Amino acid sequence: MQVRRIKLTRIKEKEEYNDEDFVAVEEPLQIRICNKSCDTFAVIMRTPGNDKELSLGFLYSEGVIDSIEDVKNIDQRGNTIDVWISKPLKVKTRDLIVNSSCGVCGRAFLYTIDIIKSETKVKKEVIFSLPEKLKERQNVFNITGGLHASALFTIDGELIYLYEDVGRHNAVDKIIGRLILEKKLPASSYIMQVSGRLGYEIVSKGIKAGIPIICGISAPTSLAIEMAEEAGVTLIGFLRGRSFNIYTHRERIVF
Amino acid sequence: MQVRRIKLTRIKEKEEYNDEDFVAVEEPLQIRICNKSCDTFAVIMRTPGNDKELSLGFLYSEGVIDSIEDVKNIDQRGNTIDVWISKPLKVKTRDLIVNSSCGVCGRAFLYTIDIIKSETKVKKEVIFSLPEKLKERQNVFNITGGLHASALFTIDGELIYLYEDVGRHNAVDKIIGRLILEKKLPASSYIMQVSGRLGYEIVSKGIKAGIPIICGISAPTSLAIEMAEEAGVTLIGFLRGRSFNIYTHRERIVF
Repeated sequence: MQVRRIKLTRIKEKEEYNDEDFVAVEEPLQIRICNKSCDTFAVIMRTPGNDKELSLGFLYSEGVIDSIEDVKNIDQRGNTIDVWISKPLKVKTRDLIVNSSCGVCGRAFLYTIDIIKSETKVKKEVIFSLPEKLKERQNVFNITGGLHASALFTIDGELIYLYEDVGRHNAVDKIIGRLILEKKLPASSYIMQVSGRLGYEIVSKGIKAGIPIICGISAPTSLAIEMAEEAGVTLIGFLRGRSFNIYTHRERIVF
Repeated sequence: MQVRRIKLTRIKEKEEYNDEDFVAVEEPLQIRICNKSCDTFAVIMRTPGNDKELSLGFLYSEGVIDSIEDVKNIDQRGNTIDVWISKPLKVKTRDLIVNSSCGVCGRAFLYTIDIIKSETKVKKEVIFSLPEKLKERQNVFNITGGLHASALFTIDGELIYLYEDVGRHNAVDKIIGRLILEKKLPASSYIMQVSGRLGYEIVSKGIKAGIPIICGISAPTSLAIEMAEEAGVTLIGFLRGRSFNIYTHRERIVF
């Protein structure tokens, strides 16, 4: 399935109502390369569907295969796909390096959730005010039209840090790095606002930093919602104008 | 520098003129972890600036450090940053796995450019028609408002493949995987259109697949432009309505 039906609370000016909507499915795919035996080559967060094409394209981009002639067989069971190759792996394991946008990298398991118990509450009016404050301060975006931003706000809506980067996860990492430098982790009384979509990696980084309220201008993925629910994070999406959607932990937003 | 001035050709309906604009800078940052000696931990594509925050936040997210107490010193020289840590590395190298969106992963060097010599030419009218064709067929995006798409078109503007995914690089990998399955690589007479921005990873995957014309609805990064120029790719951005910008290899677009 590429879409999933979820429950949410819609806030529009003074209205509030429960509703249902569809979100894009995000799930991990473990790609194993098999010659005599199988080894995990990568774990990718993806929308299920066309996993064979995804695996082949990824292995081609990474220089593991050059054509379909290099592939003997492909087996898939659920979220694990085994690509049997007809020659030894060209890419040496020791050369493999991780990427900024990979929350899964370097972990044997997909994630372990830290539970956020912060009792921080935030006024609806503060949430309404965030996109405008972010936009005013996005200098590079305003010049180039091409950058992601993340900002950290106090629960009164004061912007304390804002970072911009070509990589949306980098902008979040810059916030977390600043919190580390200022010894402010866990960041249990702050709101994080991002300029784009809310996927696994943004939300997992936020959870690890202990941030109880994460807002985005665009849509969340299915996995982001599941993680936020489990971790105790209030997840807000489609925050535009004077409306937003609350996907999880509604209790932190007060009127 | 976070922005760079570049030259481009603006196409608006029947007009064409040369202009200058600013794009967001994208450059690699090599993060090395040092205890007794230094080892590369990751190479991240990022917008320069706040590299100390980025490195600390990234290492925290990856579970390498828990607080600033774990860091003895940080040295930066250009695009290499050394983080000296006060305890042995917790993340074992053998657990490191690569990520879908990482064009750099698994390579000792940043990139080796394949030169695309395709003499394919495309009519301006075909380029104008791409976003509408992509949008019509983006089923999951139309339902959820939250997915990236990539499509491959013939030079006559016929859509042949379209894939959607939460990861923009996955959507490109799915196209390339399909090309592999159908033995159509190098894809030297096709146009690739993506729903978002044009960064290093999208353009590097396209170059590796031999695609001579790459179009996006949004902005390119500095590195995407440099790579496209060097590789012989026609790079088109801000393709919206009946206008677009040509950043490199103008000669493939005919009127």
